[in-house]
Amino acid sequence: MRRIMPSIVAVAALAGLVSYLGAVSSQADQEAAPIYGIKIPKGYRNWQLISVNHLAGGNLKQVRAQLGNDVAMRAFREGKLPFPDGTIIAALHWTEVSSDENNSVLASGFPGASLQSFVAGSTVNVQFMVKDSKKYAATGGWGFADFTNGKPGNEALHKTCFSCHEPAKARDYVFTRYAP
Amino acid sequence: MRRIMPSIVAVAALAGLVSYLGAVSSQADQEAAPIYGIKIPKGYRNWQLISVNHLAGGNLKQVRAQLGNDVAMRAFREGKLPFPDGTIIAALHWTEVSSDENNSVLASGFPGASLQSFVAGSTVNVQFMVKDSKKYAATGGWGFADFTNGKPGNEALHKTCFSCHEPAKARDYVFTRYAP
Repeated sequence: MRRIMPSIVAVAALAGLVSYLGAVSSQADQEAAPIYGIKIPKGYRNWQLISVNHLAGGNLKQVRAQLGNDVAMRAFREGKLPFPDGTIIAALHWTEVSSDENNSVLASGFPGASLQSFVAGSTVNVQFMVKDSKKYAATGGWGFADFTNGKPGNEALHKTCFSCHEPAKARDYVFTRYAP
Repeated sequence: MRRIMPSIVAVAALAGLVSYLGAVSSQADQEAAPIYGIKIPKGYRNWQLISVNHLAGGNLKQVRAQLGNDVAMRAFREGKLPFPDGTIIAALHWTEVSSDENNSVLASGFPGASLQSFVAGSTVNVQFMVKDSKKYAATGGWGFADFTNGKPGNEALHKTCFSCHEPAKARDYVFTRYAP
């Protein structure tokens, strides 16, 4: 094993470097969110699921999912607070759409139950919380970013993030709880 | 590289074997779902997200997520139909709970919008679709399984799975669509 390990480490390091360079080049032409300077983290759509929810009010109806990178998932599962530096949480928001297709199946599978299915339609926006206790010391250790169609929201929008998350201070400013 | 690779392959194979044996031993005392003989796939909660939805009707309110193993995710992202053998789709269902905590934050963040947030509460059940075109030839190539608190539902329940999925034949019996 002792002779194998350094080779593996070298290959892994090389792979990590290649992956890092790939991330840098693909992010290079991407606009960063104001105030916090956060770009869309590469590969976030492949992260694991923290939880799901939906939001309703007036004309607004959304289904939502929160994903976490490996650091985030470990902290959620171990109930670790505060979240360690390197934590990134992604919040994906889709327009909620009534599914006629599902409803028709539900009507025949569960007659009389009047079941209604609502599924994810078009993407509304995606938001990120990035933990860096030094860089973002003024905002609870978190940087915030909001993107619509890959473009970050403006500075006024980003000024609202932290104050909105402040009520969740006891849970390190994170609303989402892990759904097992 | 030529000298490194066999060592890596050997270690990877060993790691795979250890992981496989771990899966076998942890599944050994687990009950399989009737008809299809499916046990809860190890590590399914770590799979990637396909989509989210919610269901309402009468007293029933659920938020839901569908996760896929690597074979499933590749097929969804490439729009590949039928799904290849080895595809596993997991459907996680939670009771939907109104979040007073979120609602209070939304009320001050978006005054007048009357936003209501519904989050995942207790787990209701988890279901799996497993693609094996030979083993499950009589049911469109899919095996079905439904678990509540780790225990499979009965045979009568599992007899309903395929007929319920038949309307989605054009999409290889899968209702869920990938949400980017």
